[in-house]
Amino acid sequence: MSAVIQDIEVIPGGGVTSARGFRAGATAAGIRYETSRTDLAVVIADQPCVAHALFTQCQVVAAPVLVSRARIAGGRAQAIVINSGNANACTGSQGMRDAEEMADLAAQHLGIDPGLMLVESTGVIGLPMPMDRVRAGIARLAPTEDGGHEAELAIMTTDTVPKEYAVALEIAGRRVTIGGMIKGSGMIHPNMATMLAVLTTDAAVEPSVLREALTSAVDRSFNQVTVDQDPSTNDMVLVLASGTSGISPIQPDTVEARRFTEGLETVCVELGRMMARDGEGATRLVEVLVEGAANEQDARLMARSVVSSNLVKAAIYGRDPNWGRIIAAVGNAGVEIDPDAIDIFIGDTQVAANGAFALHDPTAVSEAMGADEVKIRVVLHAGQGQATAWGCDLTENYVKINAEYTT
Amino acid sequence: MSAVIQDIEVIPGGGVTSARGFRAGATAAGIRYETSRTDLAVVIADQPCVAHALFTQCQVVAAPVLVSRARIAGGRAQAIVINSGNANACTGSQGMRDAEEMADLAAQHLGIDPGLMLVESTGVIGLPMPMDRVRAGIARLAPTEDGGHEAELAIMTTDTVPKEYAVALEIAGRRVTIGGMIKGSGMIHPNMATMLAVLTTDAAVEPSVLREALTSAVDRSFNQVTVDQDPSTNDMVLVLASGTSGISPIQPDTVEARRFTEGLETVCVELGRMMARDGEGATRLVEVLVEGAANEQDARLMARSVVSSNLVKAAIYGRDPNWGRIIAAVGNAGVEIDPDAIDIFIGDTQVAANGAFALHDPTAVSEAMGADEVKIRVVLHAGQGQATAWGCDLTENYVKINAEYTT
Repeated sequence: MSAVIQDIEVIPGGGVTSARGFRAGATAAGIRYETSRTDLAVVIADQPCVAHALFTQCQVVAAPVLVSRARIAGGRAQAIVINSGNANACTGSQGMRDAEEMADLAAQHLGIDPGLMLVESTGVIGLPMPMDRVRAGIARLAPTEDGGHEAELAIMTTDTVPKEYAVALEIAGRRVTIGGMIKGSGMIHPNMATMLAVLTTDAAVEPSVLREALTSAVDRSFNQVTVDQDPSTNDMVLVLASGTSGISPIQPDTVEARRFTEGLETVCVELGRMMARDGEGATRLVEVLVEGAANEQDARLMARSVVSSNLVKAAIYGRDPNWGRIIAAVGNAGVEIDPDAIDIFIGDTQVAANGAFALHDPTAVSEAMGADEVKIRVVLHAGQGQATAWGCDLTENYVKINAEYTT
Repeated sequence: MSAVIQDIEVIPGGGVTSARGFRAGATAAGIRYETSRTDLAVVIADQPCVAHALFTQCQVVAAPVLVSRARIAGGRAQAIVINSGNANACTGSQGMRDAEEMADLAAQHLGIDPGLMLVESTGVIGLPMPMDRVRAGIARLAPTEDGGHEAELAIMTTDTVPKEYAVALEIAGRRVTIGGMIKGSGMIHPNMATMLAVLTTDAAVEPSVLREALTSAVDRSFNQVTVDQDPSTNDMVLVLASGTSGISPIQPDTVEARRFTEGLETVCVELGRMMARDGEGATRLVEVLVEGAANEQDARLMARSVVSSNLVKAAIYGRDPNWGRIIAAVGNAGVEIDPDAIDIFIGDTQVAANGAFALHDPTAVSEAMGADEVKIRVVLHAGQGQATAWGCDLTENYVKINAEYTT
């Protein structure tokens, strides 16, 4: 992606503490099996924020998700404490007590209202939280204004690279910053997967605008990213708006609200792309664009279906120009289509026209499939609906990583 | 499975020509890239049969599926000609003409009404049928009463073993035989996948009984089998009932209808299990039983969700007793459940109780996960709904096979 998207400035090295009024930090609490790594992080605003969060759609929901969902119900929050190494999921009533204690201790340590402290966990499901280590770790947390990167490193699990992004844009004559960090590599699928994103902004935003902006941005970014079709028990996307940019609160249905949503979507799309590229075992990013669908929702479903198909993903890994698997995946999205009106492009090369083989140079296609970013475009000629989805190839290494995760 | 299931006798070496009045045969037409292998088969009844077929739910449907669907609409058929090596899918109007010609030529060669000759293809999508070879091959087809195994060998694609099964049971005082063959190894998923099954019986059956029996049997067998979550363009299950057993036609809502359905389900379940076990790259069969669901449909969805999860499948491959992935998959089935009332067993060992960790011997679990048949049981305590689903582990070899299929 280009560094400037329609007057949106990308902040080099930006992340969750790029926006004014936020601090972050981390410590090695010994929750993970590699005890030398940091595994406990906090992101905190100087003041209570307008906040909104979206959570996993899985019916089995981890304790910290339940606790955070309850605390953020009023639309306000100030901080979140996060551990990796243990998901605190399927841990019964003890897990609920542990999540509550974790949040309360962090709030006490950092001197904020416990009702404004959220909590999240990521890691292995079904094991009790090692609370002595968590307690000792929380007491060591000392967030700073440039601690965003440190926090990101601490929440990574099978992620191989940190994933942070921030932009600045002018809203109502002032410079507003929106940034964030994300973790997630496996168990990644539309409707949130094992992903955890914390977004911060110094914009002042009416609660309803923040809710709508986050929902819209997530629908077009994280919910269109898949690694392995497995949503998780712990997924969460949080946005905190500090208001310290000095603008008046952004009101619904205004130019400013659209502009803010655009900025938030840009950050979410970039973080989502980073997550797809870092999919477990992945060697390439796959971007599927569906055009000409009857509507955007249909386009989303079809783009996700293609990017989710194990057979398409394995074919991309093998640089096998097997467009038959792409068209079959389009047909399996649960959307009514005219199969005789489908065009498919891999990179710049058209491989199918009107639902059938289009004469093409297989070498060009094979090269496009070996690119660092593999681009697939499906055109349906049914309407104006358009959507993108992101994923990665399926490799032997994905299997290896997931055959050996807990042991 | 035991050799005798409630007075249902398994016929050793049985298959699609076990029932009286059926012949089958095959030839090497040179449609496949390995030209030495047989790749064109026919199954034919001596007389027109009461017949029913179920087809892929994919929106992109191959030409032979469209042709067969039209010809069987009246509930009668006598034979099917099948090729492997080319799916005749996404082949436009030429593909339709080729499928029609294939069926008509086969009918002419074998001396039956073309309207009673069905056609099916399996293999690569999007390439034109090599019709000279098909025509020459059809002219060589010479079905015999013991040609079932030969036909099965010819329709295999990435299958590593042939899959045939037949049973005999007493209905209305006479011995009735039900048998069949199946192909399918990849692109296998509920709602029919790239699977092709031909079932034959010498029972005499009212058309409505045959329709209901097939739908019920397939719902409890093939639609509960998944290898890689990708349904295909060509799936088809056909049953032909010759009536040569001499029984009077089985009427709806009778003891005989239930008995026939039971026999058909037994054959379908066994063929489905063989297909799951032979999943691409698989080293073991995985059987997931969900009990205590609110109803059978809920149980089916949850069993399928567990057996479909890449993370569960990779964990089984690695013998990793990661039951957290199982409970997450249960929660992702789109069924409302009480996560605190879930018990999970791997083999005979309970690993989760009331949605949380149950103290267990990890060695026993690891051994159960390394068994030739891995059994997972999920108990929900919500009602009487029960269902089984079958699948396989996810291995590096699956990725290798599918990264290199067309090239």
